Amino acid sequence: MTQEPEPPSDYVHGYSARESRRLHDQATTLAELLLSDTAYPPGARVLEAGCGIGAQTVTLARQSPEAAIVAVDIALDSLAQAKRKLKANALANVTLQCADIFALPFAPASFDHVFVCFVLEHLRVPAEALARLREVLKPGGVITVIEGDHGSTYFHPDSLEARRAVECLVELQARTGGNGLIGRQLYPLLVQAGFADVRVSPRMVYVDGSRPELIDGFTRKTFSAMVEGVRGAVIAEGLMDAAAFDAGVRDLYRTAAADGVFCYTFFKGWGVR
Amino acid sequence: MTQEPEPPSDYVHGYSARESRRLHDQATTLAELLLSDTAYPPGARVLEAGCGIGAQTVTLARQSPEAAIVAVDIALDSLAQAKRKLKANALANVTLQCADIFALPFAPASFDHVFVCFVLEHLRVPAEALARLREVLKPGGVITVIEGDHGSTYFHPDSLEARRAVECLVELQARTGGNGLIGRQLYPLLVQAGFADVRVSPRMVYVDGSRPELIDGFTRKTFSAMVEGVRGAVIAEGLMDAAAFDAGVRDLYRTAAADGVFCYTFFKGWGVR
Repeated sequence: MTQEPEPPSDYVHGYSARESRRLHDQATTLAELLLSDTAYPPGARVLEAGCGIGAQTVTLARQSPEAAIVAVDIALDSLAQAKRKLKANALANVTLQCADIFALPFAPASFDHVFVCFVLEHLRVPAEALARLREVLKPGGVITVIEGDHGSTYFHPDSLEARRAVECLVELQARTGGNGLIGRQLYPLLVQAGFADVRVSPRMVYVDGSRPELIDGFTRKTFSAMVEGVRGAVIAEGLMDAAAFDAGVRDLYRTAAADGVFCYTFFKGWGVR
Repeated sequence: MTQEPEPPSDYVHGYSARESRRLHDQATTLAELLLSDTAYPPGARVLEAGCGIGAQTVTLARQSPEAAIVAVDIALDSLAQAKRKLKANALANVTLQCADIFALPFAPASFDHVFVCFVLEHLRVPAEALARLREVLKPGGVITVIEGDHGSTYFHPDSLEARRAVECLVELQARTGGNGLIGRQLYPLLVQAGFADVRVSPRMVYVDGSRPELIDGFTRKTFSAMVEGVRGAVIAEGLMDAAAFDAGVRDLYRTAAADGVFCYTFFKGWGVR
């Protein structure tokens, strides 16, 4: 329970240019759904733990212009991209820093708020990470956690191969010590980590023919592209044969047609130290 | 495509006392989630198609006291229960009538609104039913449709047996000509039936340890009880053996513990004639 290993393998969330683009697409499409109700008051000290390439950091910083945000990540190359992104958006209220969630270089009770998005899914011991983050919160401080849940995926037309392809994503993530079904677990995880007044709000992405931006931004460029991106790993690990996996990916893209429907749910949770 | 057969087998939604109680529990718990945004103006003529035992009718009538509601069902015994329920609630703005959705005894364009809840899931040809209901709507009239989707179910702790038990529910419903995954299909079904300005709003029931009313009212008494209720049929049809099914049901009830989570999504759709 002590040390978290390397950042997640690029099986699931790599740091390739394509992957960066996908994460960016995702944040642009989902920013309102996930972040519109997160803004910090003037003078608040906020820690974003695991900022990655800054996909959420830009929105946080924009929505809380007078808060002081410290955004940390374990990966230097991600931080370099985050830095460029913040500069391009002329955002000056963020300090970037290289740090491990399991060895945070901050005194206890140094932050008013902690924000964690798409990070716990990669960790072997997410409750332990939450407990560490709780320590750097001031008493009365609030943590905000956002995670997806790949098991919340369903669609029309239904397809056995597409479902299996999504299950492969979960299985690959499990093999690297992560948890693709973590969204539904936020409530018990936050309680287990010692937080009080825990609340969780599901944020469902529902996409049908009347929502062309989400068809493109979510069904195609976020979710189907993410599944397509693990093709090599799925085949290398023998989880599905190439023909079945390709059929599954084709069926996922098929749900982006005018008569298709795609559903996925993120979970946003809060807890008080 | 012409005639709908008998009402659904009691495999899935029977008319036993226990089943009536479950449907009542469900409506009481879910009324706000599903119906709080449905109210009809004074003088409106509203058709509720497939009112069953009146679980939704009471809420509709209460929320639209000056609308004239005609509630029809194909089953006389259900109508008798609906009648008692309306009387017990002193609601006088509902006319009950025995009728088949596929042979409605109403002139074209006779209603301002049509309301259909938990009905399409039982029909072999739901788009055809919607087309018939469209005919009795006045031009500009609006249909409101609510359906569940058993494939939207997921929970924590996850359990293979519990997932299989839920799949049995879908399979049994399919064998009687119904569709337990119809919620996600409302948008294309309404479009296919000729409705304009189709909109769909997912209504997710999210249950965690902080929501004791939903733990009891939904996880236990609505969903887990519904799955438990098909035990005999599952075993008779050889879909699962008794031990595995019982383990699945136990695991469903397990999600009602303080550290458990249960998720299910209903879909509410609208279309304009």
